[in-house]
Amino acid sequence: MTDTPKIMLDPDRLFPADPTTRSFAREIYETIRDLPIVSLHGHVDPALLAADEPFRSATQLLVTDDHYITRLMVSQGVPLDLFDWTRPAGREAAASDREVWREFCRRWPAFRATPSRLWLEYELVEILGVDERPSAESADRIFDAIAERLDDAAFRPRALFERFGIDVLATTDEPWSDLAYHDVLRDSGLRGAVIPTMRPDKLFEVAHADWTESVRKFEEAAGARIDDAEDLIAAIAIRREFFRSRGATATDHGSPTMEVRPMPAADVDRIFAAARAGAEVAAADADAFRAHMLFETARLAAQDGLVMQLHAGAIRDYDPRVSSVHGPDRGFDIPMWTDAANALRPLLGAFGFEERFRCVVYTLDESLWSRELAPLAGAYPALFLGAPWWFLDTPSAMRRHREAVTDTAGFYNTAGFVDDTRAFLSIPARHDTARRSDAAALAELVAAGLLPLAEAQELAIDLTSHIPTTVFRWKKEMDS
Amino acid sequence: MTDTPKIMLDPDRLFPADPTTRSFAREIYETIRDLPIVSLHGHVDPALLAADEPFRSATQLLVTDDHYITRLMVSQGVPLDLFDWTRPAGREAAASDREVWREFCRRWPAFRATPSRLWLEYELVEILGVDERPSAESADRIFDAIAERLDDAAFRPRALFERFGIDVLATTDEPWSDLAYHDVLRDSGLRGAVIPTMRPDKLFEVAHADWTESVRKFEEAAGARIDDAEDLIAAIAIRREFFRSRGATATDHGSPTMEVRPMPAADVDRIFAAARAGAEVAAADADAFRAHMLFETARLAAQDGLVMQLHAGAIRDYDPRVSSVHGPDRGFDIPMWTDAANALRPLLGAFGFEERFRCVVYTLDESLWSRELAPLAGAYPALFLGAPWWFLDTPSAMRRHREAVTDTAGFYNTAGFVDDTRAFLSIPARHDTARRSDAAALAELVAAGLLPLAEAQELAIDLTSHIPTTVFRWKKEMDS
Amino acid sequence: MTDTPKIMLDPDRLFPADPTTRSFAREIYETIRDLPIVSLHGHVDPALLAADEPFRSATQLLVTDDHYITRLMVSQGVPLDLFDWTRPAGREAAASDREVWREFCRRWPAFRATPSRLWLEYELVEILGVDERPSAESADRIFDAIAERLDDAAFRPRALFERFGIDVLATTDEPWSDLAYHDVLRDSGLRGAVIPTMRPDKLFEVAHADWTESVRKFEEAAGARIDDAEDLIAAIAIRREFFRSRGATATDHGSPTMEVRPMPAADVDRIFAAARAGAEVAAADADAFRAHMLFETARLAAQDGLVMQLHAGAIRDYDPRVSSVHGPDRGFDIPMWTDAANALRPLLGAFGFEERFRCVVYTLDESLWSRELAPLAGAYPALFLGAPWWFLDTPSAMRRHREAVTDTAGFYNTAGFVDDTRAFLSIPARHDTARRSDAAALAELVAAGLLPLAEAQELAIDLTSHIPTTVFRWKKEMDS
Repeated sequence: MTDTPKIMLDPDRLFPADPTTRSFAREIYETIRDLPIVSLHGHVDPALLAADEPFRSATQLLVTDDHYITRLMVSQGVPLDLFDWTRPAGREAAASDREVWREFCRRWPAFRATPSRLWLEYELVEILGVDERPSAESADRIFDAIAERLDDAAFRPRALFERFGIDVLATTDEPWSDLAYHDVLRDSGLRGAVIPTMRPDKLFEVAHADWTESVRKFEEAAGARIDDAEDLIAAIAIRREFFRSRGATATDHGSPTMEVRPMPAADVDRIFAAARAGAEVAAADADAFRAHMLFETARLAAQDGLVMQLHAGAIRDYDPRVSSVHGPDRGFDIPMWTDAANALRPLLGAFGFEERFRCVVYTLDESLWSRELAPLAGAYPALFLGAPWWFLDTPSAMRRHREAVTDTAGFYNTAGFVDDTRAFLSIPARHDTARRSDAAALAELVAAGLLPLAEAQELAIDLTSHIPTTVFRWKKEMDS
Repeated sequence: MTDTPKIMLDPDRLFPADPTTRSFAREIYETIRDLPIVSLHGHVDPALLAADEPFRSATQLLVTDDHYITRLMVSQGVPLDLFDWTRPAGREAAASDREVWREFCRRWPAFRATPSRLWLEYELVEILGVDERPSAESADRIFDAIAERLDDAAFRPRALFERFGIDVLATTDEPWSDLAYHDVLRDSGLRGAVIPTMRPDKLFEVAHADWTESVRKFEEAAGARIDDAEDLIAAIAIRREFFRSRGATATDHGSPTMEVRPMPAADVDRIFAAARAGAEVAAADADAFRAHMLFETARLAAQDGLVMQLHAGAIRDYDPRVSSVHGPDRGFDIPMWTDAANALRPLLGAFGFEERFRCVVYTLDESLWSRELAPLAGAYPALFLGAPWWFLDTPSAMRRHREAVTDTAGFYNTAGFVDDTRAFLSIPARHDTARRSDAAALAELVAAGLLPLAEAQELAIDLTSHIPTTVFRWKKEMDS
Repeated sequence: MTDTPKIMLDPDRLFPADPTTRSFAREIYETIRDLPIVSLHGHVDPALLAADEPFRSATQLLVTDDHYITRLMVSQGVPLDLFDWTRPAGREAAASDREVWREFCRRWPAFRATPSRLWLEYELVEILGVDERPSAESADRIFDAIAERLDDAAFRPRALFERFGIDVLATTDEPWSDLAYHDVLRDSGLRGAVIPTMRPDKLFEVAHADWTESVRKFEEAAGARIDDAEDLIAAIAIRREFFRSRGATATDHGSPTMEVRPMPAADVDRIFAAARAGAEVAAADADAFRAHMLFETARLAAQDGLVMQLHAGAIRDYDPRVSSVHGPDRGFDIPMWTDAANALRPLLGAFGFEERFRCVVYTLDESLWSRELAPLAGAYPALFLGAPWWFLDTPSAMRRHREAVTDTAGFYNTAGFVDDTRAFLSIPARHDTARRSDAAALAELVAAGLLPLAEAQELAIDLTSHIPTTVFRWKKEMDS
């Protein structure tokens, strides 16, 4: 028991190996290590913080709801059923939290050198105070040790939020949400803001089975009838204003492609009417409708100044059997090739120089970085490059991202790090990873004689704080 | 003569430059350097080992049959005719082996920093005991020195096979092969196994001039009439069983794309009948037929457990003048863009969770690694990422591959190294290169504080031995 | 004033951080640092050298005409109008040169770690003798200091040309140019050659508004009527001969794609006739016409030996509002995905082994390097890989380029560095950057035990001098 291997959190982790470069990285990291966390895009459920209940177990906290973890377990042969995501109330669990935890610990080698392991080690050691390395042998001891922590009020969501030093956390919300949790949190005395982000995807997917129901809910929320696309856009404008009044500074949009393209009104009306009548909508029509609605979103954004985030390039619900049985977001969304230059041309041609318009683009396709996105962001004032997203939210992809875009777009056409997480506990781990990665990248520029150390330190602060807060309009523009 | 430059085989070659990281690499490499070679995909001719004749000359051994070598010579202006690949028996050679060798030695600088040079230097120094650097001046001396070795029984194929420490070598065989050479080898007392792999590509290419003849040979081998696609599939099942009975654990499939997609039976029958009747088959039909047959292959694999290897993304016989005059595999197969996520969706939707099904995918398109293949392999239990293939079988591509896929798929969803070579003498050189590259990559993880050294060493052994033997079902599953 | 931060030009800039590797880089760089500049593709206006007038100001010299600089300023919110590129004679300037310079200096942080900053620092310190770091505070002082230099005859174009040690500079010229400036320069006693390059793009763009006018000018220059495509090709042959007689060794071709493909004569005639008649030409026809004319260009090149350069993959004039108001080449040309293997197949099939034919391909799409272009250049004797182009003309892209192509194509199927610049003052800065980058890349090969230092030094000289001069036929073939 006493000779179980320990997790060693190397204080120099992620820094370059060369001693001189490493010492630069340390100095740069020191300047930013303790800055407040600015988390302007993510998927933490505001109900978690509003309710402030204790977490149920290590499994709920670290495994079940983290698709980075569960998918890798599944890829190694763990049955999807184990996680029992869609268990109806009352039905018995397929496996207890403890059993799932044991399976997870047994699979620990599968996570070697993945960002999940990096985050988990940080969470275990730095947040939960557990330093045993997970294994079949240590699983129960770790489970119990974590259970003990979770009983402690210091490990409730709001206490952790404050301990993490979060200055602002943006959530992602349905367009019909009443934002009641945000109201609760604003009045709760929480140190740090929790602001909403409107994500109206479901209103744009006319071929989706839920579309009619989504529009109905949206009508109710907006207090306006929606009989055609014009009504829909008007209702969106109403709801954007509502979100803005509750502190939102941005909207978010997911799309398989980057197409943002207006369509003649007659076509829009035809597709809307067919969908409303419950007719089947052809895939090409559904794509064109989405592209049109994104264009109209940009038009609204150019007026009200909400920053438009575009997450493009994933095939959602890649495996219909998985999503129908186990629900969405189980790790079975798969990236695909996307075009940016042609797809974004109508958007940028119309709004790329508009003073109030701002678009942050996220991609899963690395080949777009140097070829299309950096040249676009390095030309249009309205376009910013989002942080490496999802599968690319890793130290090595961050390095590749900086290498691919800095030459052409510099640092100040990027939007800064966003953690984009559902896994609340991983927030400080992810920001620490991003800060270390930036420190490493900047240290290499210093070592290569391309940037004096003092400038690198100033730049590190900009990347950590000033760039995200100003690009996402959380604070006033940087004076530059 | 005495001052000819020598080949210096740096004992630390391919290791990181930073001294601390290099020392980690050395320690990791030491753990795996002398492990037996597991070569579970490749193109060594079993006849070579069955006949066990002496090699004819340095030229035959190292140049003529290695398209990595000949294509680079051709690109620098050496006429294709020099190699005289398709010389009919009795016709005089365009150039003697010695003349070809001289031309090769004269072109040595063209190979600077290529993997071919790395392999050749290993072969010359470590296997053949020659350390003169090839040049116009040294060509004859090296040719003669090698000739002397080749006279020695210790340099016959089987002796080399045993000296290389090969535990198992998989060949790639026509689906109608009687596997007689494998029978010979099994009974020969050779230390190490030589197992066959069925590659039925020619049966799937209905637009190819040889298709009818291939089907005819296959009928004979299977002992069954083939009048429609159903018959063809039934005959394939018979032959798979035959290959399995001779030790095969896998099949191999080459395809320009990754499309694996079932087609309605009526269409399959129509295309088969047209091809059988000698009618011209449209390219789209030929593609659909191949995709369908690959889908049926997966169905069989889910039953008999033969691992399905898919090599996709090359335009074969890119230059018809080259292939018609000089034959296939002369370096004029050129990779092209391929899609994985959409193309593999029917396969994974149908068989991605089947217990006995296993698919190893190889690509020539690096942009697929992080974007599509790692997310797929990091989700589906049936999918494994093949080693960097062909043009990507190089130390730098290996590093890029590890960087691109490990974050998302980890190490245990990859299939381990395969040498994939026709050039028998390069087998140990290629495995040594892969081991050094892995040691270097793991050492960098250790230096970055992401992996303790002991874990890196354990992982190195898994990558070298356990992963390939279990993924390819050569040995029972790893207990994990 | 005295405590303004200085620009520190690190003598080891761009070299690897590891001390041993760095010392190799230094030794390699020393061998090539002072070699004459060979600049065989670029956009310096020959009129600049022929007129030999003093530069007007720092702004004209370093900012306004450099789209790398202006686009990054625009991306950060500087209005395009500031640069006033298309001001008609007599109209007052929107902003004085000094005001533009102040804006540029204020934006200095936007250039952190970009190649523009690297080049500018070299130009300021090494050429202009200014070492204050640009900022709002220092702007006027630097402007005045540069003004003082520009008054000096030593800073006139021809004096700088000689100081830069330029052995040969190739310009890029309209196909109807009389090359009068080149005549002036040849007779001027200038140390170093200035040779023309014919770029007939405008003759190939039948859908372009200016096409008829371009053909008219070309008729006049060629002294031949052009009534159909055959006439056009004949006239091109005449003009190629004229360019050759004035020292040209190459032509240059820009195309959105890499399509080079012959078309039936009837189609060519139909499209030509329609365009000549002023009818609108469909985009597909315009693309096919361009592809056909590029094929015919290759045919001519296989006869007269002019090296064919192909720059493919940019959407020109991406934003019509920008180009119509501010002109072309303002940083709003955006790369897009391109195919090489299929697109180049007709070209290589027809001319890939032609003795006199030679094609240098440049791409903006990194994913082509390892996947398609290196395999093609590593097989066909006629194909050479151009230097990393435009957005990829950066130290980090150069490293990625070497890594991606060397394994498969070696060094001797690349065409060597070309600076491709409009910004005259940046020529030595760009060549120094390329030499340092090559020294760094070769040093890493030495450190990894893949290349002895002496061979790396020999190779560095080849990359700097012998390869470009022989590939572009400026000098006789390397004896190899």
